[in-house]
Amino acid sequence: MATFSHLAYFPVRRSSCRDSYEPNKQNLSNIKIDGTSKKPATKVEMAGVATTSISMTLLGNDYVTEQQARQNIPTTKQSVDHFRQGFSIEGGVGYRQRVVIRSYEVGPDKTATLESVLNLLQETALNHVWMSGLLSDGFGATHEMMRNDLIWVVSRMQVQVDQYPIWGEVLEIDTWVQASGKNGMKRDWLIRSQATGHVFARATSTWVMLNRKTRRLSKMPEGVRGEIAPWFIEKQAITDDVPEKIIKLDNNAKYVNSDLKPKRSDLDMNHHVNNVKYVKWMLETIPDDILESHQLTGITLEYRKECGSSDIVQSLCDPEDGMFIERLKQENQDTSLLDGFSLAAGILENGVFLGSFEKRQLRYTHLLQTNGNLKDEEIVRGRTVWKKKPEPSPFASM
Amino acid sequence: MATFSHLAYFPVRRSSCRDSYEPNKQNLSNIKIDGTSKKPATKVEMAGVATTSISMTLLGNDYVTEQQARQNIPTTKQSVDHFRQGFSIEGGVGYRQRVVIRSYEVGPDKTATLESVLNLLQETALNHVWMSGLLSDGFGATHEMMRNDLIWVVSRMQVQVDQYPIWGEVLEIDTWVQASGKNGMKRDWLIRSQATGHVFARATSTWVMLNRKTRRLSKMPEGVRGEIAPWFIEKQAITDDVPEKIIKLDNNAKYVNSDLKPKRSDLDMNHHVNNVKYVKWMLETIPDDILESHQLTGITLEYRKECGSSDIVQSLCDPEDGMFIERLKQENQDTSLLDGFSLAAGILENGVFLGSFEKRQLRYTHLLQTNGNLKDEEIVRGRTVWKKKPEPSPFASM
Repeated sequence: MATFSHLAYFPVRRSSCRDSYEPNKQNLSNIKIDGTSKKPATKVEMAGVATTSISMTLLGNDYVTEQQARQNIPTTKQSVDHFRQGFSIEGGVGYRQRVVIRSYEVGPDKTATLESVLNLLQETALNHVWMSGLLSDGFGATHEMMRNDLIWVVSRMQVQVDQYPIWGEVLEIDTWVQASGKNGMKRDWLIRSQATGHVFARATSTWVMLNRKTRRLSKMPEGVRGEIAPWFIEKQAITDDVPEKIIKLDNNAKYVNSDLKPKRSDLDMNHHVNNVKYVKWMLETIPDDILESHQLTGITLEYRKECGSSDIVQSLCDPEDGMFIERLKQENQDTSLLDGFSLAAGILENGVFLGSFEKRQLRYTHLLQTNGNLKDEEIVRGRTVWKKKPEPSPFASM
Repeated sequence: MATFSHLAYFPVRRSSCRDSYEPNKQNLSNIKIDGTSKKPATKVEMAGVATTSISMTLLGNDYVTEQQARQNIPTTKQSVDHFRQGFSIEGGVGYRQRVVIRSYEVGPDKTATLESVLNLLQETALNHVWMSGLLSDGFGATHEMMRNDLIWVVSRMQVQVDQYPIWGEVLEIDTWVQASGKNGMKRDWLIRSQATGHVFARATSTWVMLNRKTRRLSKMPEGVRGEIAPWFIEKQAITDDVPEKIIKLDNNAKYVNSDLKPKRSDLDMNHHVNNVKYVKWMLETIPDDILESHQLTGITLEYRKECGSSDIVQSLCDPEDGMFIERLKQENQDTSLLDGFSLAAGILENGVFLGSFEKRQLRYTHLLQTNGNLKDEEIVRGRTVWKKKPEPSPFASM
């Protein structure tokens, strides 16, 4: 299980006067708060920074540093976050955010990269929690979790991309949570075109609780359930999601990248390797010709262990049913046999959603592991699904 | 000179219905346009995508692909971009954008990385141009530049960071352009705290015109000057900016990283290595203990040549006045002599702005070059300036 977790569920949120949005306005005496309480929030002046709706007593602390003032975590539920263009949906417990794909979030093909999509999932999850008023500390805990020394960690993540948004495109990202068994939580996302409503991507993730000190899994205390259960919405972003086992690769894997070392810029706020770096390490094992001719339509990640800054990592990758697909590919055959196989595999795994995908899919199994002294230790297992890129439009480059 | 250029001045802008912002609204018939013309823009329905203010005749083309519809480049000047929270300032020719620092834009110390700052400079520059109505093609040209086969390339960039914004902090980024000599252009930026107005960072860049076919520098045609001159504002983000020569390092440099190979994810839309990757390659030569104890307060980049996807790159780095500072550092002396030296250097280079910086600065010279067959070729020269990180507040981790 990965540190993505600590970040991605209940994080620090820092923001100054974020509920005010009026162009050209610098006047801090004029801050508007759009909270559900409809009461004006307390305003605190500290070190030249104006803050809104920070309750110092709830922070259990008489001192407010400049950083805490800039952090500005709300203690009551908010319904609108003007600065992030976020607002509550589904009767106040779901979250929707408008996002524009930025120039540096696209790759050479001018569409958003998978890394950007993953980043936006993390960001909207955090902003959802920020608006909940439940956030207690900087490492992902509600008030009750904090009292019980508990943090969230992600155990599984699945993303399906039907189409990648292009540079400058406006998206709407919905996210919500629900129960996963007795002690876990699920978070889902839908990414849509703001203009047409077309669903570009769907994602789901599973979270469990870890004791921060013992590093062991924990049951969900009743107090925590009481806090988060009102936020649960029973709705699936990916329908008929039946997790399919990802086998553990060994050194017979076809593609192996060794001696991967995290760089400083790969570390997140917990000094662990960030989730997006995991995915980059996985994708770098995929052969260049596949990356050129195909695009990733699905990725599943099963987290086992955090990767620290001093770990040396190995990235293994093996085509699923490899010899069969590889042989056909080498012979450059585009047979109906291959189409039939891949289509069947797509439906088997992904149900209704993948039914409309193009037929020529490739699937790879992945493993990231640390080269330990005594034995290798798994960090994350993965599966990626790829489809042929559409032929470029004759007018696309005009 | 680098390909950052092609992207960062007059790029493709794609967006659907970007001038409409009303939470929960999906109704495309209700689009509001906030243009300076105050006239409703033409609305075109194409392939299920509603577009505003695209002039097909100006695109010189009777066909509009779905991508062009999503791209949605305005042909008239706009004064507000609701989706990006951008609006015009300085009598309509400057641009200001509100930006919230996202969770994935910060590093292990929970402040925005330099890479994120550079990305935001690029993004706001692009959005400024998008709003100008001058944008013609997808590779950075106005209508007149397009007719003359000209593109913009960046020749120099300087960024000064006084303080790094933290996760969730709301920024206001101003950007504007002015003449640089007879044939060039300058683009400046100011990054401020939205709440307090404190200036976090300042930046300036110089641009020249290149003929796309001959790859030679070009004079600025009168037609192009006529298009862009009305946008010029004579104002300096960095006052007293007297470019200081950056010497060319050779193989005697103290720190050398060789065999650097661009990865797919390092390439921009022109299939050249992106600007942020250059900076990463530079910073990775800085010793870890300096990265831990210091933060970058200034960077200057002088671009010489584009770096392609197949180039093998070498990153050289040398401390300025190296032996003097290094020796004192090794002896762990914090003498007034060292303080005096560094302060003087800071004032010499950076004038008023750096006057308020902490005194203990380090300076490094950088060079990225390709290992050519016949001779090494310079990609970019750089200088970085570093100051001691402030001591952490006793309450910072609460």
